[in-house]
Order: sequence, then C-alpha cells, then structure tokens
Amino acid sequence: MRNLKVTLSYDGAEFSGWQVQPNAITVQGTMASAIGRITGEKVLPQGSGRTDAGVHALAQVMTFVTESSVPTGNFLKAMNDILPASVRVLEVMDAPAEFHARHSARAKTYRYRIYRDAICPPFLARYVWHYPYPLAEEEMARAAALLLGEHDFTSFAAVDPERGREHAEVTNVRTIFASSWQRAGDELTYSVRGSGFLHHMVRNLVGTSILVGKGTLQVEDVTRILAARNRSAAGATAPASGLYLVDVEY
Amino acid sequence: MRNLKVTLSYDGAEFSGWQVQPNAITVQGTMASAIGRITGEKVLPQGSGRTDAGVHALAQVMTFVTESSVPTGNFLKAMNDILPASVRVLEVMDAPAEFHARHSARAKTYRYRIYRDAICPPFLARYVWHYPYPLAEEEMARAAALLLGEHDFTSFAAVDPERGREHAEVTNVRTIFASSWQRAGDELTYSVRGSGFLHHMVRNLVGTSILVGKGTLQVEDVTRILAARNRSAAGATAPASGLYLVDVEY
Repeated sequence: MRNLKVTLSYDGAEFSGWQVQPNAITVQGTMASAIGRITGEKVLPQGSGRTDAGVHALAQVMTFVTESSVPTGNFLKAMNDILPASVRVLEVMDAPAEFHARHSARAKTYRYRIYRDAICPPFLARYVWHYPYPLAEEEMARAAALLLGEHDFTSFAAVDPERGREHAEVTNVRTIFASSWQRAGDELTYSVRGSGFLHHMVRNLVGTSILVGKGTLQVEDVTRILAARNRSAAGATAPASGLYLVDVEY
Repeated sequence: MRNLKVTLSYDGAEFSGWQVQPNAITVQGTMASAIGRITGEKVLPQGSGRTDAGVHALAQVMTFVTESSVPTGNFLKAMNDILPASVRVLEVMDAPAEFHARHSARAKTYRYRIYRDAICPPFLARYVWHYPYPLAEEEMARAAALLLGEHDFTSFAAVDPERGREHAEVTNVRTIFASSWQRAGDELTYSVRGSGFLHHMVRNLVGTSILVGKGTLQVEDVTRILAARNRSAAGATAPASGLYLVDVEY
C-alpha cells in the first residue's frame, strides 16, 4: 500500500470546482476517474483544500492511497495521457503513510490577478478580474500590510454553515506571513501566503481591498473590520476568475 | 449611411469559427447580433476572411454599413458592453464607401504558436499546439525561407470545392513577404505575412514544417511540394488552437 502525493495544475474555468458532485465536471472527480482507469481502484483523492468553480491552481496538492502495482514513476505520464488538457499532473511522489494533503499543510500561497486597462484581451477574460476603474494602489498596499500576522478572519470568511460543520473548524484564527500588491504592466496582483485560509477568504480580502482603492473605505478600516468578526463588515467577494492557488507547503 | 471599419480580437476556442451558421455560436453571428441591438438594423458584417473554429484573432477587421444615428465614437463601448468577454472591439472607424474588409485587404499576418516542453500548462492548452517531440528547428527555419516570394500554393490549400466555388478564386498564387520561426522559452512560433492566404494554408504550412523538423521531409522538399500543386504532396493540417490572425493591412 502506498500513499501518493500528486502536484497538479488546472484551469478552473473548465471545472465546477474541486469537490466531487453529481452531474458536474469537478477536478476531484476527474482525478478519481483517471486513477480508476490506471489502477482499477475506486478512490477519492484528498486535496489540500477545495477550490471553487472558476478558481485556478498552479500547484494544487492531493493525496491518495493505492494498492496497485503500477510504479510511482509511471503515474505522471499515465495520468496526463488520460486527463483532459485543462488539468496537468506536475509531480507524483511516494509520501509517508501519515502524510495528508490537507492536514499536513503548513502554509499556502494564493495570487489574485486584476486586469486594469480599459479593454481586457479576450484571452485573459477567464484568468483575471477585469477592473478598469480608478484605484488608489498605494492605499491598497498599506491595507495589505495590516493583514500580516495572526488575526481572527471571521469577517473575511464565507457565511457557510454546511461547510463550517463538516470541517468542524474550531477557530477562524490564521497567520498571514506575506500580503502585498504588485503592479506589472496592465496587471495588478495580490499575493498572500498564510498558515491557512477560510472559505472565500482571499476573494473577500481582495473585494475589501478594492473598497480601500476606491476610497469607500480607509486603510485603517481594515483593522476595524478584522475586529468586528462579522462578514457583513467587509467588502464583496471578488470574482473567482482572478484567483490562483500557487503553492502548498508541508 | 456610413461604412464602419471595426477591429476586433477574439478567443477562437469560444466560437464555431467566424462564419455565421445555424445553431452555432460564431463571431460573425455574435457581432451581427450586437450591431442589431445597438442600431436596430439587421446587418451581416463582412470579415477580412473567415477563421475556422478554434482559430484566434488578435486583430480581425470587419466592415458593415449602417443608417443609424449612433455616433461612430459610441460604437466601441456600446459593442463591448453587449459582447461576451471572449470577443472585444479594439477600434471603430469611419471608412470610405468603397472600403471592404476582404476586398480591400493588401496583406495579412498570421502567427502559429507551438508549445515544446513535455507538460503543457493547462492555461495554454486552448492557445497553442502542444508538440513536445524532437524537431530540427534550424531545418524548419531554412524551409520557411523557401516560401518567400510568389508561388502557387495549391499544395497547401484545403481541398474545399464548396468554398472554392463561392469565393470564385481564379488563382492560388499568393506572395509571401515574411516567413520565419522564432524560439522564445518553451514556445516555437511561426510568423508569416503575405498578400493573402488560402483556406487552411497557414496550418498546412505548419504541418509540413513539422515533417521537415522530424526529418520525414528534407528542406528542399518544400520546393518540390510547391511545384506539385497537389494537396496530397504536403503535410497534415496543424491544429486550429495554435493559429492567430495578427494583422490585416490595407
């Protein structure tokens, strides 16, 4: 019996999110089906976390247990030959039996891409949030820095009783190690690395940053919003299309 | 009455090609519908040429005649507000009455993108041809140079009696002004500028270049294939996903 760790990348626009569900093409379901064809086993791979419909992954991590005799080194090519081009396996490794893609994760990095010019190239429409309106980017950078460190992020978490119960989260406290905006050409990108992220947390941080950029909120309001521990204190959820899971650290 | 010249860009993966057809989402049909909503007129815009399903455009050009009172300067925003994000209008200009997107074109530029590394990022799958096998790129460059100048390109034209009749092409002679391969990172790109292009011509040139790169054909075979004036002398048609209409000159 082997516990395999798989790193994969996918175009979120082609999937109804990570989590398997009936009558929808999901990443988890697509991966389970590929594993089934290779090993003959029915397994449900466990991701480092769910990504919502439209959210992309540069390097998602998943684990699954197999009793098959297929060598670990053969899985990458076998999977990529079967999978649609919208998802690619980048690495397959043997992992210790106790290793779990979600429980063992120590940090994650996300990126959020905003396209700023008036006309968004059609080739980017699925891969960014097109926001061509004025933004005070310096203020957004200052607001991002206020998120660093350990905070209760309840104000930035989806009000999502189903998911809350299932995951049995005991706390909404997370630690943010890096949080910054970068401008390159017509793109404005938010990068955030943290111990973990609540459902919709990055998209809610971006939606709130936009309110700071527009002047609807002041930079210091971010501290007030964190203290409120109330979803309604923060801004709207930014669109899924701009969000990328970039890295999972163990 | 005004004759309007529109420059537009589209993600070919989202359309069943340029030409309007029943029960399919086409660029021409989508543009006609947007014009109809703005002007109330039923018009079929004329493109500089058809692009097939999956073929992209960085700058396609089309013309249409309108009797509406909508100012020319208002069309760009009005169209982009209506159109799906997969097609964007880049420019709208008044043109002389005799100007026609196809008949007035004097030169066109196409680009063809090939992705060479073993694993194609899922975000590029719709926008390149993934060809990870060995290629003698120097030989391909030499073959591309043999296409320069005036030639009968029958060997590289789709055998397509329907279209031939409709267009009433009297000759398959075209002049190629530029033809070259460039390597940048994991991408190998063919750029070609010519007086005009026959149906499938760029994709057939690329398919034949690949045979030169593989060593199935020698560089000098390109001259023999041109002289044969027979489609079966040349290589297979390269996939639509890698092809971009880059520029139309008048």
